[in-house]
Amino acid sequence: MRTRLVDLVERFGGQLVGAPDIEVSAIAPLDRAGASDITFLSNSKLRALAAQSQAAAIILAPQDDPVVAATYEGARIVTANPYAYFARTAQYFVSLKEVASAPGIHPTAVVHESARVDPTACIGAHATVEADAVIKPRAVIDAGCYIGREAVVGEGTHFFANVTFHARCIIGARGIVHSGAVIGGDGFGFAPDGGAYIKIPQTGRVVIGDDVDIGSNTTVDRGALDDTVIEDGVKLDNQIQIGHGCHIGAHTAMAGCVGVAGSARIGRYCTIGGAAMINGHIEIADNVHVVAGTLVPNSITEPGHYAGFYPVGSKAAWERGAAILRNLPALREKVRALEKRLNTLTEEKH
Amino acid sequence: MRTRLVDLVERFGGQLVGAPDIEVSAIAPLDRAGASDITFLSNSKLRALAAQSQAAAIILAPQDDPVVAATYEGARIVTANPYAYFARTAQYFVSLKEVASAPGIHPTAVVHESARVDPTACIGAHATVEADAVIKPRAVIDAGCYIGREAVVGEGTHFFANVTFHARCIIGARGIVHSGAVIGGDGFGFAPDGGAYIKIPQTGRVVIGDDVDIGSNTTVDRGALDDTVIEDGVKLDNQIQIGHGCHIGAHTAMAGCVGVAGSARIGRYCTIGGAAMINGHIEIADNVHVVAGTLVPNSITEPGHYAGFYPVGSKAAWERGAAILRNLPALREKVRALEKRLNTLTEEKH
Amino acid sequence: MRTRLVDLVERFGGQLVGAPDIEVSAIAPLDRAGASDITFLSNSKLRALAAQSQAAAIILAPQDDPVVAATYEGARIVTANPYAYFARTAQYFVSLKEVASAPGIHPTAVVHESARVDPTACIGAHATVEADAVIKPRAVIDAGCYIGREAVVGEGTHFFANVTFHARCIIGARGIVHSGAVIGGDGFGFAPDGGAYIKIPQTGRVVIGDDVDIGSNTTVDRGALDDTVIEDGVKLDNQIQIGHGCHIGAHTAMAGCVGVAGSARIGRYCTIGGAAMINGHIEIADNVHVVAGTLVPNSITEPGHYAGFYPVGSKAAWERGAAILRNLPALREKVRALEKRLNTLTEEKH
Repeated sequence: MRTRLVDLVERFGGQLVGAPDIEVSAIAPLDRAGASDITFLSNSKLRALAAQSQAAAIILAPQDDPVVAATYEGARIVTANPYAYFARTAQYFVSLKEVASAPGIHPTAVVHESARVDPTACIGAHATVEADAVIKPRAVIDAGCYIGREAVVGEGTHFFANVTFHARCIIGARGIVHSGAVIGGDGFGFAPDGGAYIKIPQTGRVVIGDDVDIGSNTTVDRGALDDTVIEDGVKLDNQIQIGHGCHIGAHTAMAGCVGVAGSARIGRYCTIGGAAMINGHIEIADNVHVVAGTLVPNSITEPGHYAGFYPVGSKAAWERGAAILRNLPALREKVRALEKRLNTLTEEKH
Repeated sequence: MRTRLVDLVERFGGQLVGAPDIEVSAIAPLDRAGASDITFLSNSKLRALAAQSQAAAIILAPQDDPVVAATYEGARIVTANPYAYFARTAQYFVSLKEVASAPGIHPTAVVHESARVDPTACIGAHATVEADAVIKPRAVIDAGCYIGREAVVGEGTHFFANVTFHARCIIGARGIVHSGAVIGGDGFGFAPDGGAYIKIPQTGRVVIGDDVDIGSNTTVDRGALDDTVIEDGVKLDNQIQIGHGCHIGAHTAMAGCVGVAGSARIGRYCTIGGAAMINGHIEIADNVHVVAGTLVPNSITEPGHYAGFYPVGSKAAWERGAAILRNLPALREKVRALEKRLNTLTEEKH
Repeated sequence: MRTRLVDLVERFGGQLVGAPDIEVSAIAPLDRAGASDITFLSNSKLRALAAQSQAAAIILAPQDDPVVAATYEGARIVTANPYAYFARTAQYFVSLKEVASAPGIHPTAVVHESARVDPTACIGAHATVEADAVIKPRAVIDAGCYIGREAVVGEGTHFFANVTFHARCIIGARGIVHSGAVIGGDGFGFAPDGGAYIKIPQTGRVVIGDDVDIGSNTTVDRGALDDTVIEDGVKLDNQIQIGHGCHIGAHTAMAGCVGVAGSARIGRYCTIGGAAMINGHIEIADNVHVVAGTLVPNSITEPGHYAGFYPVGSKAAWERGAAILRNLPALREKVRALEKRLNTLTEEKH
């Protein structure tokens, strides 16, 4: 299926330079795009590569256009954010080829009679939808998913196969929840009593906004008394753990294997690197960026970039360094002693 | 549904001060409890807040009672451990509202004819129960769970949706296993042979005691030759990995994302903080508390608190610090050289 | 079921010393093997234990044979790699007892009419196999698994219960994928646009070679434009995350909880310790061994052993050490100042 450039520009904006009727059938990277492809330049360092591209058309930024245009003979779409334009164009090409899930409930799905499933929604094989759950228009619940009592799945939200979404949890519109994710499991709350633990019932919910993506095997626990809240536009990668009562601000993104302990409050527009760990009951300001592998034990009140992990080296070098690190207080004492001796020496001298 | 205070005290103990016929319908935190709620004071720092609470009744400790009683006009339940009392009361209120799973086997469940499912147990939609498995009284196996051959699920134990519990594994009474947990997968055992790996069959089981909670997407591997053992009262949060042949002592609790490598032996009454990692083939004594993010490479023989993670700072500060850390041996050499020079200088002087 | 030693040697090689007709029924560790067992010695330090073993036969290396033979009276199988011999023998004994899954499609499985399932393959209860998927001879797909459109599962490959294997992904022969694993979820790719994120479609596949093992709840994302590739003989433990576009070289093994960020390229014959984290867009050479808990932010071009984690200590010791670490630049300045003062002092003296 081919698309005219003018149709892309009508859809996604940008300024078209070149024949509007040129047709492209796919989007491809600079070095692999051919005569029926459109490509994109999102990194000015690759201008020379772009100038030689075999693509029928290129998406690029105003500041790169003159250099590329000097030698590149294809059509150009000039736009402020070529990478976002690429993302939208790629989505569009995918949508043309996509096999849409047919609306309706698969005969093997078990849907409680009190559940309200919109006729445009799709419920896959072996899915279970419990009493009073609500599945909104165009939502897609793939095979093997479990939707608990009174849970709400928003418009156009897609659950991939084998998602577990527990009772009373809510997710907004246009969300994506990947396979194996568990939303609304009990938070980890116990009262110690004579050495043993008494379980504290977890009666809050998980409340998720619009345009939220949740990765494969990620877990988000329901709150104890309050809800766990994930605001609009949050993007969670795979294998992430969000503890009970956390609050994740809008448009924050977390890479794989991150852990956020209970009742942490993370601001908006943050990025949390892979396997970083956020302590419970702390607050992270807006626009905080945590480097991968960093443990954050206390609140961060100022925006900025934060890091803290042991630098890798050869195992032998690490062993030497770690041995000294273990005795850092002794090294400091030695330096202080030297200082004192030098002071005495200097005083004696004068 | 309302409950008289005298009925709570009959059930859970404590000394009631105030009208026994006062009725409450829920438990709520100090700052939100209203006229039909009971609340609790588990932190003496919040005495002032407690004294002003709008709750109909308050659960509190003897040492806090006089101060609170001076101004608080509601009823009081005085008990040694108000937090545990809160947990039990909250469980009670939840049980009143709970929609009990109806006993019996859902028509879509596949239960092998040789499996012994107690008539009071509940098997959910799309569950699979293999040959010779045993499901004891009042156990609840939610939708999509898989119970392997000869596995045993104890009395009143609850598996949430989509749990995998493999062949011959055993869990005792009153346990909770959350969604996506996998119990009894093969341990990671291979014999290197000319660059490739030969799989070592994992023929042990996972044997889990009573009152054990296992979090969402947590994995516990079966042993190679011996069993993996989890003793009574252990509490495991989400996304935890327990390797083959581990032994976790009674009433030990682990926070999310912890990893325990194969054949580690962890004592009783330990707490392991989030994302801490315990090496294989080591032993951790009873009453050891490991701080979040700490890697434990060797055995710990003394009870106490242990920590080890790189302190977070601004990324720029981390870069400076890490560069010096990489050269720590050079810094120590410099200090030693200074010491020698100073010694020479002092000797020369005298 | 008993097996003659001569039959083992015919199957797996090695030199048999002793009566060929001796029969054994199981393999057991040195300290527990009895008169009907065969045992193995893979660690020369345990020679004394081996010499006293009650086993009917022992598998051992040529260098250990004379010492053990001096007192041990059972039969011996002498072989260069007793541990690999043990693994193969154990597999053999397991295979004798194994209840083979009956070929065929369980009546509750939902298999699309265009899927090609070999008649010798086995599809379990509640499994879903989408359009145009291919399930090759003797493959076993256990209960609750999901196989996406056009996915290919190789000969003799075994998916344990509740695996999710998405559209167009491929796995070769003799693989094992454990429960809860998710293969082919979308990679984590977004284009920032005015504070929000635009999803980049993930159109690559996951392509997995032969003899690959994937642990419980491990996730492997599909590539964005290119494929994610896992070569022959790779062994992945539980709870591992492999990002989109990664390339894992043949016979590399990773322990539990490892994270590998997108587009990392890891060599062959590597070992990655538990919870180690590999940054995205970097390259790790062949034969690199990364110690558990190490974060690798940059490429490693030389084979060898690498480490980097903060050494654990008592919490109090860690607090002292971490405080100095935070001020390492100040300590270095102090040392530099001392050096200068000492230089001045020495110069003045002469």
